[in-house]
Amino acid sequence: MNGAEAVLRTLAASGVHACFANPGTSEMALVAAMDEVPDVRGVLTLFEGVASGAADGWGRMTGGPAATLLHLGPGLGNAFANLHNAYKARTPLVNVVGDHAVLHRPLGAPLTSDVEGVARPVSHWVRTTRDARTAPADAALAVAAARSGQIATLIVPADAGWSPSPGASPPVAPAPAPRAPEQAVHDAVVALRSGEPCALLLGTPATHGRALELAGRIAAATGARLIRDTFVARLERGGDRPRPEPLPYLTEAAVQALAGLAHLVLVGTQRPVGFFAYPGQPSLLADAGTEIHGLCVPDEDAVAALEALAEALNAPPAPAPEPVAAPEVPDGPIDAMSFAAAVGATLPDGAIVVDEAVTAAFMLPEATLGAPEHDWMFITGGAIGQGLPVATGAAIAAPDRPVICLEGDGSAMYTIQSLWTQAREGLDVTTVILANRSYAILALELARVGAEGGEAARDLLEIGRPALDFVKLGESMGVPGRRVDDARGLAAALREAIAEPGPHLIEAVL
Amino acid sequence: MNGAEAVLRTLAASGVHACFANPGTSEMALVAAMDEVPDVRGVLTLFEGVASGAADGWGRMTGGPAATLLHLGPGLGNAFANLHNAYKARTPLVNVVGDHAVLHRPLGAPLTSDVEGVARPVSHWVRTTRDARTAPADAALAVAAARSGQIATLIVPADAGWSPSPGASPPVAPAPAPRAPEQAVHDAVVALRSGEPCALLLGTPATHGRALELAGRIAAATGARLIRDTFVARLERGGDRPRPEPLPYLTEAAVQALAGLAHLVLVGTQRPVGFFAYPGQPSLLADAGTEIHGLCVPDEDAVAALEALAEALNAPPAPAPEPVAAPEVPDGPIDAMSFAAAVGATLPDGAIVVDEAVTAAFMLPEATLGAPEHDWMFITGGAIGQGLPVATGAAIAAPDRPVICLEGDGSAMYTIQSLWTQAREGLDVTTVILANRSYAILALELARVGAEGGEAARDLLEIGRPALDFVKLGESMGVPGRRVDDARGLAAALREAIAEPGPHLIEAVL
Repeated sequence: MNGAEAVLRTLAASGVHACFANPGTSEMALVAAMDEVPDVRGVLTLFEGVASGAADGWGRMTGGPAATLLHLGPGLGNAFANLHNAYKARTPLVNVVGDHAVLHRPLGAPLTSDVEGVARPVSHWVRTTRDARTAPADAALAVAAARSGQIATLIVPADAGWSPSPGASPPVAPAPAPRAPEQAVHDAVVALRSGEPCALLLGTPATHGRALELAGRIAAATGARLIRDTFVARLERGGDRPRPEPLPYLTEAAVQALAGLAHLVLVGTQRPVGFFAYPGQPSLLADAGTEIHGLCVPDEDAVAALEALAEALNAPPAPAPEPVAAPEVPDGPIDAMSFAAAVGATLPDGAIVVDEAVTAAFMLPEATLGAPEHDWMFITGGAIGQGLPVATGAAIAAPDRPVICLEGDGSAMYTIQSLWTQAREGLDVTTVILANRSYAILALELARVGAEGGEAARDLLEIGRPALDFVKLGESMGVPGRRVDDARGLAAALREAIAEPGPHLIEAVL
Repeated sequence: MNGAEAVLRTLAASGVHACFANPGTSEMALVAAMDEVPDVRGVLTLFEGVASGAADGWGRMTGGPAATLLHLGPGLGNAFANLHNAYKARTPLVNVVGDHAVLHRPLGAPLTSDVEGVARPVSHWVRTTRDARTAPADAALAVAAARSGQIATLIVPADAGWSPSPGASPPVAPAPAPRAPEQAVHDAVVALRSGEPCALLLGTPATHGRALELAGRIAAATGARLIRDTFVARLERGGDRPRPEPLPYLTEAAVQALAGLAHLVLVGTQRPVGFFAYPGQPSLLADAGTEIHGLCVPDEDAVAALEALAEALNAPPAPAPEPVAAPEVPDGPIDAMSFAAAVGATLPDGAIVVDEAVTAAFMLPEATLGAPEHDWMFITGGAIGQGLPVATGAAIAAPDRPVICLEGDGSAMYTIQSLWTQAREGLDVTTVILANRSYAILALELARVGAEGGEAARDLLEIGRPALDFVKLGESMGVPGRRVDDARGLAAALREAIAEPGPHLIEAVL
């Protein structure tokens, strides 16, 4: 076997079963090896940002890493923005990036670049393997690094792929998550028992599964408020699950949401900070008088810390939250309110919602409170163009669950090529494009930085000239679509699209 | 005025008159300033790779820098692949990248990343400006760096944009290009007078204008062959211009093309190297016995070196080359040969051809030998997805010239959003999509690295499932299109599209 096959077999043995690929010449030995290792499912994308976002979606849903297969520095560059989102989500993910053969690299061929340099700002772990003998061992280490919630980038020179190798490496156990210090648990106990206004702020590691359940118990037992970070990787919601309040996106609103707290206990997150800075507004969102307690930081074991806290507080199971009726879908045009109602009224059991609805998203959390159990995924790193790719990867990871992607029109256009992979793989993804024909968030932000914005400025935020026809865009890539411009029509289109297998697109004109 | 306006005014004063933008919140002060500085034309793109490629196209045509306006690390990441192509083309280009406000940056907000780290692998010059007072001076330095054929990346924290500034900085003169050593000219004279088989190999600085004319004189006077690098930024062709032979893309063919030379004189390039390495094939393309003479390296003044060489050789003006008849367009389906004939038969006077036709491109140089004067632009860094954006920027830079973009279907999909900017700006670009529904170059490369490729491998190179409908894709973004599947139909469609103002798309089914 050659080094490429040894790498792929190592990935498979280490539990990597999907590879989102946009390969080039330097990865041809890895591509050829796909036939020898059917345990790794190759999924072709037309653009690398689709591959990295899909691997993020897979990792968020399965908790384990998918691989990407990328072509030298430019391929990794194209994948960068969604790797940034995955990095901030702490998604386990392995990039396999081809490079020139070792002796070819110094010669200045056109595609030569500093691949490690490109990788570093979006990788916790970077290594260029030396040859076909080191490649599988490095692949095993890359997967172990990824399993600790890291982006691992393994650069494979072409000759390390095509040269003979003695075979795959056995899996390497990932480093266990550090435990939170006992004192941190003790401090949180004291704060939560103080009788003063308290809140738990949940980051990504505490917004699903056992951690979320424990956080709900602790909040119920102590009367503390339960808040979650604005953008987390995966929030389990619906049914009897705890309902943390979202920390608002806008600085003004976030400051208000955190006002008056004596104690803020951080669970798998850091002290809250504004998404952007604005003239005359604070960057740190909590009151100066609020005492911040770091129960556990993102890398630590959130479940263990919450178990210890719940035990110290003797917190019983939380009572089931009050049932909330599904919203009524109003007559009339689509706006943020009626859009949210249409989603809340139609969300099916077990849905995976990918939320990049941007300015149209503000009413969604409340309108979907009464929905059946579902997962909600956010734009963790703020790099738009993640919705369609993450939905694609989530659908491959969870083929029996309906995926609903709520997507702004401006954001959709960064990685619109995702639709083709959805069609090719026959994925159950319903994409709702919110067509307000502008970068509406930026029109808002323009005012917030104190700028007025004349004609030239407004023209740079306006994407309605010409109007994008998303139905044709979908059809051009094999995804059937329809256009709706009223809220009831949107709800009806959602029900139909969800009921029918395969990908669908709904252009919702605001 | 604020720092943002001072930066924009500095760019305008330094001769930067186009800004290809995909801004976000951290760039809002720069966006607002666009109204105060109408000398800088803002051009909106839906994806940063379009912005960077368009700035490359502008720079190749005008010889001066355009700016991009990009949003933090992820925006720069999205621009990366086409910046790589511009970097290898030595196109003058200024990236203006927003970042968080200085005091916000250390706090770990979602969009925070190492922007300088992202910039470095594709920038000759990188600086993060400190505040509104330093920003205009740094902008002037960035333009001066760009004017030396460099990618200059200026990172502007949001508060450097929105804070008060005393105003614009005056332009800074760029460093002059170094002169080639006299000995290098002398060595070339000796080689060219040796009576042994000689060739001049022309890189980007020597493939247009006075340098190309001089190279043609020298070749004619000495009997040396005139060869050009496979992929140069801008090749002036047609009419009475010299006709350098292309160095073939395939290693085997390139080795054969250079075989038997006693002397190879490099003009604005480096010693020829294979695009990729392959098992059992050389990376260096010239014979071991060929003596390599570096007349001038890419950074040196190619015109001055060629003037000195022509003078030393007493080379008279070159005779006009033999006229070549335009090819006949055959009946029948579209293949590499008939496609090239259709282009050769229809190429209008003054055309700008952007060539990313990949496997369909092999016959183009010969078929267009008899065409009227035109410019030809290649994929300098090998990062596909450059054709549509470069065509977009070239059309803005040269509004009176017809732009013809010859584009592979796979390559087109990386930056297909370019079509929207072409429609928005009403650009005279005719895009021919060569729809062979596969990454055909990779099917070829798979065999060349010695791999066979089973079903899974071939499936990763196949983009016909589902077939992309480029006519609908164009229409979805406001560009009218038509599909043709025979060579005469293609020629007719080309003639019509070129005659009619505004952008057009032709899907040529191979």
